Amino acid sequence: MSTCLPIVERFHSLQGEGLHFGKSAFFIRLGGCKVGCPWCDTKESWSIATHQEATVEELSKEAAIAQSQGAAILVITGGEPLHHNLNALCKTIQDFTSHNSRETMPIHLETSGVDEITGLINWITLSPKRHALPKKSLLRACDEIKVVIHQKEDLLFAEEMANQSIKERQISKKTSDENHKISQPHLFLQPGWNSKEGTQLTIEYIKSHPQWRLSLQTHKWLGVL
Amino acid sequence: MSTCLPIVERFHSLQGEGLHFGKSAFFIRLGGCKVGCPWCDTKESWSIATHQEATVEELSKEAAIAQSQGAAILVITGGEPLHHNLNALCKTIQDFTSHNSRETMPIHLETSGVDEITGLINWITLSPKRHALPKKSLLRACDEIKVVIHQKEDLLFAEEMANQSIKERQISKKTSDENHKISQPHLFLQPGWNSKEGTQLTIEYIKSHPQWRLSLQTHKWLGVL
Repeated sequence: MSTCLPIVERFHSLQGEGLHFGKSAFFIRLGGCKVGCPWCDTKESWSIATHQEATVEELSKEAAIAQSQGAAILVITGGEPLHHNLNALCKTIQDFTSHNSRETMPIHLETSGVDEITGLINWITLSPKRHALPKKSLLRACDEIKVVIHQKEDLLFAEEMANQSIKERQISKKTSDENHKISQPHLFLQPGWNSKEGTQLTIEYIKSHPQWRLSLQTHKWLGVL
Repeated sequence: MSTCLPIVERFHSLQGEGLHFGKSAFFIRLGGCKVGCPWCDTKESWSIATHQEATVEELSKEAAIAQSQGAAILVITGGEPLHHNLNALCKTIQDFTSHNSRETMPIHLETSGVDEITGLINWITLSPKRHALPKKSLLRACDEIKVVIHQKEDLLFAEEMANQSIKERQISKKTSDENHKISQPHLFLQPGWNSKEGTQLTIEYIKSHPQWRLSLQTHKWLGVL
């Protein structure tokens, strides 16, 4: 019996956020989220029942087509994707996208970190929430931390998450391949959408805290899906 | 006698474009430009005479202050910065910003490439223009190519510049430090400001040509200087 997952949408666009900003990307948005952020811009993704299911084979076929049409990365987002077990999806995507000696399509994951990791993921974007804290394993494993900023307290929370992530890596001696130094996550602050205060706070904070960088929801600026 | 340069403006903000997008940056905008792009958004920078001069020591002092306040990189822009000899400016900036064992402030340069390189530059953004072609030395030395897109012909030009840059590197065997492969410039397409056609062309092109990434003038979206 094939694994099915509730799908809100899937589309080929450009990654608008984080370190891989501006890259051609195929997005799979999974349904279901219990994190419940008040400012969430995809509240329709919270419920599971209202979304049609697709098999991991169907999704992987579509990923392979998008790859052949130029998609450089695959982004699993939500909702909260790790509410689901992603082992089968990741395995099938790798099988379907590594044909004709093409490199397997890098799988990126956007998560709040409230669940343990499943699936073979190449890049983890952790977007932690104050009201639903991330697991230590995500603080350890993430490649970038991206914190949404609406008010001052969010900046304190961002520093807390960065410090905890570095502490977790020191405990587990997670070193980067190149220079065997303790690997650091890339750190991004992202103004809440349409939040003037969040934008001003974020820009001023980054100017004086150069370990952080600005991330924006550019796809929304551009009106790009 | 100290070296003086015509200065349009200098300010501490965030880098809005290219690979170093979102970083805290101190900008020095030099006066003078003979390239004359019709869509230029800083035409006031074209003339030299209308801008006050500053000594390289004054500019370097300000750079060191900005660095102490959090600026991660220094960006020399214009106008066309390479109309000027940048040796003295770069040398003085390094002297002033490497105090108290702080790392020297990385110097970034934004140029159309119409003049030969001067000054010790850590990162070169080449923004070539169809009506004023770049020098081969810039095609060879640049770290990223960023082409402004208004119409279809600009996409052809972008590919031409990328190909020429790679060809120049093969001729000169310019390899990257890590893996001794011929180093490739990062490739960015940037829609002309307020150009709907440019934005649509850019997004659709990148979706099917994953070697390119989107760059945006985010500082303008945000109304940040």
